[in-house]
Amino acid sequence: MTYCVGLLLRSGIVMLSDTRTNAGLDNIATYRKLFTFEVPGERAIAIMTAGNLSVTQTTLARLEEAMSDDPDADPARNILRAPTILRVAEIVGEALSEVRGEIAGRMAGAERMAGASMIVAGQRRGGGMRMFLIYQEGNFIEATEDTPFLQIGEHKYGKPILDRVVRPDLGLDDGRKAVLLSMDSTLRSNLSVGMPLDMAVIAEGDLRITERTRIEAGDARFAAMSESWSHALRDAFGRITL
Amino acid sequence: MTYCVGLLLRSGIVMLSDTRTNAGLDNIATYRKLFTFEVPGERAIAIMTAGNLSVTQTTLARLEEAMSDDPDADPARNILRAPTILRVAEIVGEALSEVRGEIAGRMAGAERMAGASMIVAGQRRGGGMRMFLIYQEGNFIEATEDTPFLQIGEHKYGKPILDRVVRPDLGLDDGRKAVLLSMDSTLRSNLSVGMPLDMAVIAEGDLRITERTRIEAGDARFAAMSESWSHALRDAFGRITL
Repeated sequence: MTYCVGLLLRSGIVMLSDTRTNAGLDNIATYRKLFTFEVPGERAIAIMTAGNLSVTQTTLARLEEAMSDDPDADPARNILRAPTILRVAEIVGEALSEVRGEIAGRMAGAERMAGASMIVAGQRRGGGMRMFLIYQEGNFIEATEDTPFLQIGEHKYGKPILDRVVRPDLGLDDGRKAVLLSMDSTLRSNLSVGMPLDMAVIAEGDLRITERTRIEAGDARFAAMSESWSHALRDAFGRITL
Repeated sequence: MTYCVGLLLRSGIVMLSDTRTNAGLDNIATYRKLFTFEVPGERAIAIMTAGNLSVTQTTLARLEEAMSDDPDADPARNILRAPTILRVAEIVGEALSEVRGEIAGRMAGAERMAGASMIVAGQRRGGGMRMFLIYQEGNFIEATEDTPFLQIGEHKYGKPILDRVVRPDLGLDDGRKAVLLSMDSTLRSNLSVGMPLDMAVIAEGDLRITERTRIEAGDARFAAMSESWSHALRDAFGRITL
């Protein structure tokens, strides 16, 4: 399993993913699920992936190939050249649906094991920030002012806190806090979601990856935040009257 | 869908269920999912149900038949006469597995639509309080000091709060609060879980249904609690530093 969450705030984009991949409880591994691409000053894009690892890795490999200098690379599929972030989402959706179809086609009777989804977000010069959740068929939905966050993977445990605190006018620091607390609730409840975590921030108008962090297991700041959140919750619980 | 949660505290048993039943989003109805049985001074039992309504209703109907004065009633399946609460759980498990098997047998290719599960809790004179989660095959697990709560149905949204506040030494008032807040998070996130709510409390040693409440949609106390919990969470969120 996986948990990835992205916020589309007026102050910028915040993306957080775990890194645990498992093929059964007895076969777990760490794989990056957050990928960033930039042409500094022109555009910044972040992609997070959930689902079948062979599908998501192959999709990313094809996207990277299209960005390369290789003369065979198809410029129409280069997300660094696409005219808009909407077109970036379409390119990612086309690649995902194509790869997923090929792999599912070879998994007679187990097609649903080839499921995958992605969150794509970014900004290009002259355009607004956008964030899309891309389904395995290549179609997508977009984050809006009403629902300024998107989740893929094990989304339920971490949703109540997002529902309560995420608003489009949240600052980037509060955005980081919100996704980390949402991840913390998920980590506590689902063993198949695991540290380390990858975070990327793209500040509005920055047109580059403003920040990219890996939070390792045992990270003191994350542990302290998790601990004080637990305290704060128990405290608040004590003060509520029925 | 459904959400039911039961706490097994040293101070007593707290059970809370929603009442929404749906066959598709366009066909929703209100059905009781919490049932209580007592021989005051001798035993008190509460049962909550999730899953296929025809399975759970038929199971309850058979259990009720076995408790009746009908000369055909099988005394060995009478949960009001069973020597222990463990035996009560076995009787409920046998009835559930039998009914589920009959109904699934007629649903060729759609057997999994006949899924159901139950939480059974109670105390009899001379015995301790016990709480069991009963699977559709009739087998069960029991709540313990390490894990003093059980959930059936849509359990994920409401689990983070339980993980953080439920301890076996919680008082009954805090127990009521914990299950209501857990339900509140679930109601916000899953449309197929809905008001009104049914709550039952069996205080330790009371050997009767100590309290039985229905909380209607729009209940002022529940709304106030939900509102102050949201405030408290946002407050705590504001005070956490990263």
